[in-house]
Amino acid sequence: MISTDNGHKPSITTGELADLTKGILEGKNNIIISGVAQADFVKETEVTYAVNEKYVVKLLSRNVGCAIIPTTTSDDINFTFPVIKCANPYFAFALVLRYFQEKPLIPAEKIHKSAIIADSSSISANTIIEAYTTIGHNTKIGNSRIGPNCYIGNNVRIGENTSIAPNVTIRNGSIIGNNVVIHSGTVIGTDGYGFVFTNYKYEKIPQIGIVEIQDDVEIGSMVCIDRATIGKTVIGKGTKIDNLVQIGHNVVLGENCALVSQVGISGSTIVGDNCRFAGQAATSGHLTIGNNTTIGARGVATKDIPPNSYVSGFPSRPHKEEQKILASLPKLPELLKKVRKLEKELKKLQTTT
Amino acid sequence: MISTDNGHKPSITTGELADLTKGILEGKNNIIISGVAQADFVKETEVTYAVNEKYVVKLLSRNVGCAIIPTTTSDDINFTFPVIKCANPYFAFALVLRYFQEKPLIPAEKIHKSAIIADSSSISANTIIEAYTTIGHNTKIGNSRIGPNCYIGNNVRIGENTSIAPNVTIRNGSIIGNNVVIHSGTVIGTDGYGFVFTNYKYEKIPQIGIVEIQDDVEIGSMVCIDRATIGKTVIGKGTKIDNLVQIGHNVVLGENCALVSQVGISGSTIVGDNCRFAGQAATSGHLTIGNNTTIGARGVATKDIPPNSYVSGFPSRPHKEEQKILASLPKLPELLKKVRKLEKELKKLQTTT
Amino acid sequence: MISTDNGHKPSITTGELADLTKGILEGKNNIIISGVAQADFVKETEVTYAVNEKYVVKLLSRNVGCAIIPTTTSDDINFTFPVIKCANPYFAFALVLRYFQEKPLIPAEKIHKSAIIADSSSISANTIIEAYTTIGHNTKIGNSRIGPNCYIGNNVRIGENTSIAPNVTIRNGSIIGNNVVIHSGTVIGTDGYGFVFTNYKYEKIPQIGIVEIQDDVEIGSMVCIDRATIGKTVIGKGTKIDNLVQIGHNVVLGENCALVSQVGISGSTIVGDNCRFAGQAATSGHLTIGNNTTIGARGVATKDIPPNSYVSGFPSRPHKEEQKILASLPKLPELLKKVRKLEKELKKLQTTT
Repeated sequence: MISTDNGHKPSITTGELADLTKGILEGKNNIIISGVAQADFVKETEVTYAVNEKYVVKLLSRNVGCAIIPTTTSDDINFTFPVIKCANPYFAFALVLRYFQEKPLIPAEKIHKSAIIADSSSISANTIIEAYTTIGHNTKIGNSRIGPNCYIGNNVRIGENTSIAPNVTIRNGSIIGNNVVIHSGTVIGTDGYGFVFTNYKYEKIPQIGIVEIQDDVEIGSMVCIDRATIGKTVIGKGTKIDNLVQIGHNVVLGENCALVSQVGISGSTIVGDNCRFAGQAATSGHLTIGNNTTIGARGVATKDIPPNSYVSGFPSRPHKEEQKILASLPKLPELLKKVRKLEKELKKLQTTT
Repeated sequence: MISTDNGHKPSITTGELADLTKGILEGKNNIIISGVAQADFVKETEVTYAVNEKYVVKLLSRNVGCAIIPTTTSDDINFTFPVIKCANPYFAFALVLRYFQEKPLIPAEKIHKSAIIADSSSISANTIIEAYTTIGHNTKIGNSRIGPNCYIGNNVRIGENTSIAPNVTIRNGSIIGNNVVIHSGTVIGTDGYGFVFTNYKYEKIPQIGIVEIQDDVEIGSMVCIDRATIGKTVIGKGTKIDNLVQIGHNVVLGENCALVSQVGISGSTIVGDNCRFAGQAATSGHLTIGNNTTIGARGVATKDIPPNSYVSGFPSRPHKEEQKILASLPKLPELLKKVRKLEKELKKLQTTT
Repeated sequence: MISTDNGHKPSITTGELADLTKGILEGKNNIIISGVAQADFVKETEVTYAVNEKYVVKLLSRNVGCAIIPTTTSDDINFTFPVIKCANPYFAFALVLRYFQEKPLIPAEKIHKSAIIADSSSISANTIIEAYTTIGHNTKIGNSRIGPNCYIGNNVRIGENTSIAPNVTIRNGSIIGNNVVIHSGTVIGTDGYGFVFTNYKYEKIPQIGIVEIQDDVEIGSMVCIDRATIGKTVIGKGTKIDNLVQIGHNVVLGENCALVSQVGISGSTIVGDNCRFAGQAATSGHLTIGNNTTIGARGVATKDIPPNSYVSGFPSRPHKEEQKILASLPKLPELLKKVRKLEKELKKLQTTT
């Protein structure tokens, strides 16, 4: 893959890899590694990883350049290639990927001549603003990068080292922190869905609040984060949101939450820290979801969830209970027959006794 | 929040608030109110609201500037702050929000110099077209506002007082009425999903129909409304659509419908007036959904639904039936055990008698 | 509808229609047909179609200009209008729609003067690139069409006769084949959702792979196709994807698959050829779905699925089993009562015997 990356063809020795990952090298320290690979596809010039001994053993029959393996790996295994023992091989591999990752090109002109920036806005000295992007009034942007074809509204704040991909829309008043990543197509700060039905039609509830995105948040493609009716919709520090997720108005997500693709969080729901929403999970509105809670795939929280819960199902319940129900369901058609048979036999018994 | 809004810092007296909401003021008419707040956060310079007496009572212990409360509130309650009695406090509060809402800035040049407008198109005298937006051939746009980075195709019609946010795509032939709001990222009039499988591959069914969006419709962010195969996909007058909703080809939505986030309406389904789809609800294609019907969260209509229904579940059924099933489900694992026990005991009885 | 299409008003005789569809004409060959219509709305100047005899019979009472009907239609039916008998009337009608379809306008300047194309990229002689589109470095584009407001990154390859709609984002390294159609709002090659939780926060796993979209693929609006962590995310030849679909990193979709709206395919799942995912269906990650498999609406594959399967439900199981479960569910509340009654009556019997 690296070959497509604009001439970016890094290489590294096994010794340097051990330094990079703070691991313990076993084997030669001068093997040159010129790429990374998943275990199934690894070649003798590439580094791969294994998260446990089962996968370590599978590597033995392959042409491996170097492997990052757990420190807990048995000393009895003989490797024909250098290995680097790390406490967390997956994280160590992430560090290696960072090394091999293509670095973004810095454009010749930091502010593209076609970018439109209102005079009342202030842009830091090293901010990059790409082609055909519009920045509204009274907006302040730190040393961050705004991709092409973006719209950044009025009174927006964007911190330092934040990266906004092409075709992103950030509406008036949004506050974006430092080290934030926002992927293409995403819309921050659009009106929440607020209407009141009166005189046989819907009247709009103006949405005059804002969105606040704290530091270290990453937001996927085509995510909607609605502005608050009043006050703030908040995405807490370090939270990571996958693609096509809906965050309703006045939602508050805590820190270090993970929301997988196609999740929907309804308006005014408060989510604690370290919560995880698996794919297509959802919540009703106006709920409180406690810290460290996981909602399984397709689960729907319909009432408050206490901290440290693992729930699933619709309505969501403790995951073990839901598992029992799901395991029982296939027996239901047979159960109906059994009960009909029981009724008949009981009746027979009743008449004979 | 208002403070971020470009210097927009309105204030209003309690007397003027009563006039604005057509409510009955009890208390001083000269208190100056400089902001709005939800009941939990209200300060003594702010106006809030309560929809029923339970919430009215909660306000008594807070520093409230002014509260909008129901006309039905008991006269026995003594307020230490001015109150305004209204028949529909939530709607009255919407009027107050409108007052406090930041008004959109009118750009110095109505048609930005970078906007590209085909000579054959006609644009009204007060139309605003922002930067880097393209307008195709034979298109007519009334006194409306088209945000930056939009694409409006050929033969499009857009009425008066319509507002189209940044990064919206409207494809050829679409008809958009008056007072319509379309939020960022939304795509109107893309091809419906029409293919016929023949000779071991999919052949495209050309989609030559259009989309018609009637007056007073509001459409959220990242909504897809597909053009008809032949004829029209229609969004009826006053209908409000939340984010990330899919509307298939040849769907007809009636008037004053409400579709919450992540709903999907399959092709050729006809939905009556005043229907409501809760979050992530869906329909099969080619159905007829009667007027005044509600489909609960995650519900999937798989056959026609008569008017005035409230259905939920997949497949959808009357909501009360679905509620009974959902209430029964957690008892299923225990039920299986009970029936096994019954079978054994019955067998014992049968052998003993 | 045709009338809105920029003056495009084609007409055709019934004889020419028979030639176009390779069908057998019965009736006059010189009737002039100036439009197409669904059977319910057909007029005497229009051609329609019917896929089986039930629908053929319904046409008899209408003013039909011409009808495309199955070759298997009974010879006993007397038509008052010309009919064209075809083996596959729906496909034949698709050919007619292609004839009547508006042809895209070719802009006066093939590369709009506002398009920004890096010097290191190469564009074929007949490539069309519309306004405010940016093309990155070392990118190669064949004789294809790129709409306005698109972003095409670095090291991208786009083949011949491919059509990319307005407001599309294609990130670095993506490979797009020939005859591909990508609709508005779609994002190709954004980062997959890869994080490792360590030291109480999520660390990003860099996503250094690419996306490969093979020939003849069509992708709807607002589809997310994530780049691979390492290697490729692949969309196989001839596969058709509807709107608002999520394709995770390292997913491989086979050839001629159909994915209906709001489907989600989790990371690293391998899908065979000729598979179909109905609306809102999904898969867990790291699965293998065999060729010719259908997953019903809302179905979720949670483990590998063998070829030639038809599954539905969550977790997905053979569709017939799921149907039995769904048919049994409404009987569950009554079943609970029956079992309670059985328990009582059995106890009575036990005490009396």
